[in-house]
Amino acid sequence: MKEDEKLSSWKKKVHEIIYEADTPMGKLFDIILFVIIIFSVILIMLESVKAIDAEYHEILFILEWIVTIFFTIEYIARIVSIRKPSKYIFSFYGIIDFLSTIPLYISYIFAGSQVLLAVRAFRLLRVFRILKLARFLGEASQLKRALKASRAKITVFLFAVLICSVMMGTLMYLIEGDEAGFTSIPTSIYWTIVTLTTVGYGDIAPITPQGQAIATIIMLLGYGIIAVPTGMVTAEFAKQNRETSNLKNGGSYVHINTQSCPTCSKEGHRDDATHCYNCGSILNE
Amino acid sequence: MKEDEKLSSWKKKVHEIIYEADTPMGKLFDIILFVIIIFSVILIMLESVKAIDAEYHEILFILEWIVTIFFTIEYIARIVSIRKPSKYIFSFYGIIDFLSTIPLYISYIFAGSQVLLAVRAFRLLRVFRILKLARFLGEASQLKRALKASRAKITVFLFAVLICSVMMGTLMYLIEGDEAGFTSIPTSIYWTIVTLTTVGYGDIAPITPQGQAIATIIMLLGYGIIAVPTGMVTAEFAKQNRETSNLKNGGSYVHINTQSCPTCSKEGHRDDATHCYNCGSILNE
Amino acid sequence: MKEDEKLSSWKKKVHEIIYEADTPMGKLFDIILFVIIIFSVILIMLESVKAIDAEYHEILFILEWIVTIFFTIEYIARIVSIRKPSKYIFSFYGIIDFLSTIPLYISYIFAGSQVLLAVRAFRLLRVFRILKLARFLGEASQLKRALKASRAKITVFLFAVLICSVMMGTLMYLIEGDEAGFTSIPTSIYWTIVTLTTVGYGDIAPITPQGQAIATIIMLLGYGIIAVPTGMVTAEFAKQNRETSNLKNGGSYVHINTQSCPTCSKEGHRDDATHCYNCGSILNE
Amino acid sequence: MKEDEKLSSWKKKVHEIIYEADTPMGKLFDIILFVIIIFSVILIMLESVKAIDAEYHEILFILEWIVTIFFTIEYIARIVSIRKPSKYIFSFYGIIDFLSTIPLYISYIFAGSQVLLAVRAFRLLRVFRILKLARFLGEASQLKRALKASRAKITVFLFAVLICSVMMGTLMYLIEGDEAGFTSIPTSIYWTIVTLTTVGYGDIAPITPQGQAIATIIMLLGYGIIAVPTGMVTAEFAKQNRETSNLKNGGSYVHINTQSCPTCSKEGHRDDATHCYNCGSILNE
Repeated sequence: MKEDEKLSSWKKKVHEIIYEADTPMGKLFDIILFVIIIFSVILIMLESVKAIDAEYHEILFILEWIVTIFFTIEYIARIVSIRKPSKYIFSFYGIIDFLSTIPLYISYIFAGSQVLLAVRAFRLLRVFRILKLARFLGEASQLKRALKASRAKITVFLFAVLICSVMMGTLMYLIEGDEAGFTSIPTSIYWTIVTLTTVGYGDIAPITPQGQAIATIIMLLGYGIIAVPTGMVTAEFAKQNRETSNLKNGGSYVHINTQSCPTCSKEGHRDDATHCYNCGSILNE
Repeated sequence: MKEDEKLSSWKKKVHEIIYEADTPMGKLFDIILFVIIIFSVILIMLESVKAIDAEYHEILFILEWIVTIFFTIEYIARIVSIRKPSKYIFSFYGIIDFLSTIPLYISYIFAGSQVLLAVRAFRLLRVFRILKLARFLGEASQLKRALKASRAKITVFLFAVLICSVMMGTLMYLIEGDEAGFTSIPTSIYWTIVTLTTVGYGDIAPITPQGQAIATIIMLLGYGIIAVPTGMVTAEFAKQNRETSNLKNGGSYVHINTQSCPTCSKEGHRDDATHCYNCGSILNE
Repeated sequence: MKEDEKLSSWKKKVHEIIYEADTPMGKLFDIILFVIIIFSVILIMLESVKAIDAEYHEILFILEWIVTIFFTIEYIARIVSIRKPSKYIFSFYGIIDFLSTIPLYISYIFAGSQVLLAVRAFRLLRVFRILKLARFLGEASQLKRALKASRAKITVFLFAVLICSVMMGTLMYLIEGDEAGFTSIPTSIYWTIVTLTTVGYGDIAPITPQGQAIATIIMLLGYGIIAVPTGMVTAEFAKQNRETSNLKNGGSYVHINTQSCPTCSKEGHRDDATHCYNCGSILNE
Repeated sequence: MKEDEKLSSWKKKVHEIIYEADTPMGKLFDIILFVIIIFSVILIMLESVKAIDAEYHEILFILEWIVTIFFTIEYIARIVSIRKPSKYIFSFYGIIDFLSTIPLYISYIFAGSQVLLAVRAFRLLRVFRILKLARFLGEASQLKRALKASRAKITVFLFAVLICSVMMGTLMYLIEGDEAGFTSIPTSIYWTIVTLTTVGYGDIAPITPQGQAIATIIMLLGYGIIAVPTGMVTAEFAKQNRETSNLKNGGSYVHINTQSCPTCSKEGHRDDATHCYNCGSILNE
């Protein structure tokens, strides 16, 4: 029983270090972890550069093993130190941590398991946790709210863009043909989106006058409709700015409800008003 | 007579299924129709990919016939079940449905009638009807209203852009000449719009210092004037946001002053308040 | 004397037709003129297309002469029918009309005088006069006012962009060198602007890792700072929208002048106030 | 002692000319200096153009020496005439002035010291000092404030873009491989940013259908999220515009209530009005 308690206290301490960032040890752990994550991402990048891999293959391989072992220990520690391991394992971060750890192990079983290494980049999201600035998270949540409020508009917009791309892409395929690179409708649609978003690689480009005329229309369309998402998000931001500044100081503008005074029928009371501002009688709830 | 009534009731039912989406059957029909529309669009795409068409030409051909027959039946059902067929036939959707159905039939008469297949993409617009979310349509209509309100501004803007493109294009043609790809004034104008909209394919690019200098001006112009449509649409959205929030509930926002109640010290009274909204005592002037 | 009067009345009629657009004849003239201007611009375009010019050179040459003669007559008529010809000749439109007319004449004297044909595109600006919609001009003037109000901001912004381009361009020249196409500092600066404005032709592109790293920074910079002109113009539009809507209905916010009350020196009176809102004494005009 | 005073007065005069711009001499010096700075930047540009350098190498070399000597004299004068030279030497402009002056000197010691010439472009920033328009600086500071206020948002945004680029870049590397130019993960990340910012050089472009599909997503993402910085900066500008117009003059816009005069029924009085602005009679509370 005593041993159990000891273990439990040991677990508590690990939990505190790994999951929280209020203690100096916890902060230190978070920073070390983040440095290793960045290091692991850079490692993957370096491995992909042929010239570097050719010369330093062994060193990179050893470093990759060190990182993997560290991640393994961290992953086990996370499972062990939490009360309900399943809560962590199947959380967003839990899955990412798992997928970031296993590639090296399963590379002995399946070839091409390196695809999973791309997942490691997700671990970089921990930066927001480490910065742990309420302000940053506040901003992120403002962004999220702005996006959420514009969700319906964005869906309509994306559907319109996609349908337009399918139509224009099909048209360009029929007009231009193979010579200019419009080898199939999917390729043409790809080109339409490249043009509409004003990316314009130039690997495929119209050569017939009619094709160029339609391309011109697509470009002007793309140049113009970028105003739509921008306008939506901006208006949303402006609205939130306004609301925030209204809440901040006890002045200026407050929200009022549609209640009317039972005595004088005056409308336009503050949400938190208990008396009519006009006649002073008590308002119903 | 009884047969007529029977027919009529049969027609009514078909009408309900095809044109409305309130009954489970109507909803099901809409969803099946949309799936087939998407399937038919994918079919056209696959046919256009040479490698796929070479191998699966027969299967694709049969599937195309199945889709066409389904569309034919649907088209006939729509005409039969409506009281005034002409109303449907000459409506926007009626024409699109017709043009989406016939290509395969007339392909035996006219070669190259496949151009009409591009029209099929228009059928995708039905998605908005199927989603049938008032909210989505509301958003779309807000978009439409924003664009309508900015119509005059957009026309002025487009004219300015086009006139500018014609002038700059002619100038670039005179400066650059054939070597750089500016083979004619229309091609130069095409290049100017490619540059102005910041698409920049790079299939045509200035090589003389003077040409590059003018290109620089066009780019900065294009980079700057994108602010104009964005600004217009954004301002329009912001205005509508404001108006909506004012209209929505019989209340919303009123101006309040910084006065505090002499009795309860509560702040945030309406400008025209004579009594405290919190305790009902008379406010000082 | 009578002849003079006759002439004068004849001049008056011509003036009415050419300069004004209130009479049916004036309107007709404006529309015919605009059609011929568009026709003349298309003519120049067609001449520049080698294949067309080779086949139809003579027809195009004759049409060009017809247009030139029409423009000559119009130009002379404009001078003759106006009281002070110098007022027209040295006006913006006067100079453009002149430069649009002479190229064919002086092409017999100077080779390469075709450069002036590019000026003809300016004549298209007459479209705004022909549309003669107060609304359109109103929108254009709103645009102008928005740009004017943001003038200082735009200047600062452009200077910053240019200085940044010079610095980044020099840096890229030193890093990348000839191989990647960065053959000189001006070319590098040209590339920097191509990148910063997100045009991205791709005729010049960095190949060294350092160059690509700096290019990445330039791109993110360009992608981000586009917010600055957009933000400025949008805020300006929003402000004007607000002011317009304030003037419209006699509510909410009104404009007040800088006058101070002669009795109590209180400032901030409504433009249409005749009495001081503070002491009630009569205000000066 | 007298000599000392003389020297001191001589120093004072130099200080006045070099550091201030209130006297005619000071203004003249600033303008001459700016012209020479521009000239020196153009000189560096011309030197980098092989064709020009080959022909005019000696003239350019002499001019470069003249500019360097002028800059040397200016730099010494600045140090001599200021009370605390260290204050100038280690200031932003002091370091730039130093780095702009020495390249030619140390080019005899170190090859490749021309890198420092890029620094000279920084001297162009003096333009803001020469224009010395409070307005311009005011605008710049408004920009700065807008950027500062959005700092947290911009950081979150940039992190998100970078993490997204790392993930997408790794994915594209695994999908596309060497053929399409995705030779390593860093190159792929570079390509992702080129695409996300809608620059789109086209030196690297996906060729597999899967790669093109992901590219399409990146493009739409980039096309959409440009709304985020734009929205943030615009909302900030709008907010500042609002605040400025409220603070600027004890005038402009005031809130008015909906009260009407008991004598003349005129509406639209200031909140703090005690008399009707139209007829002067006392207003009810």
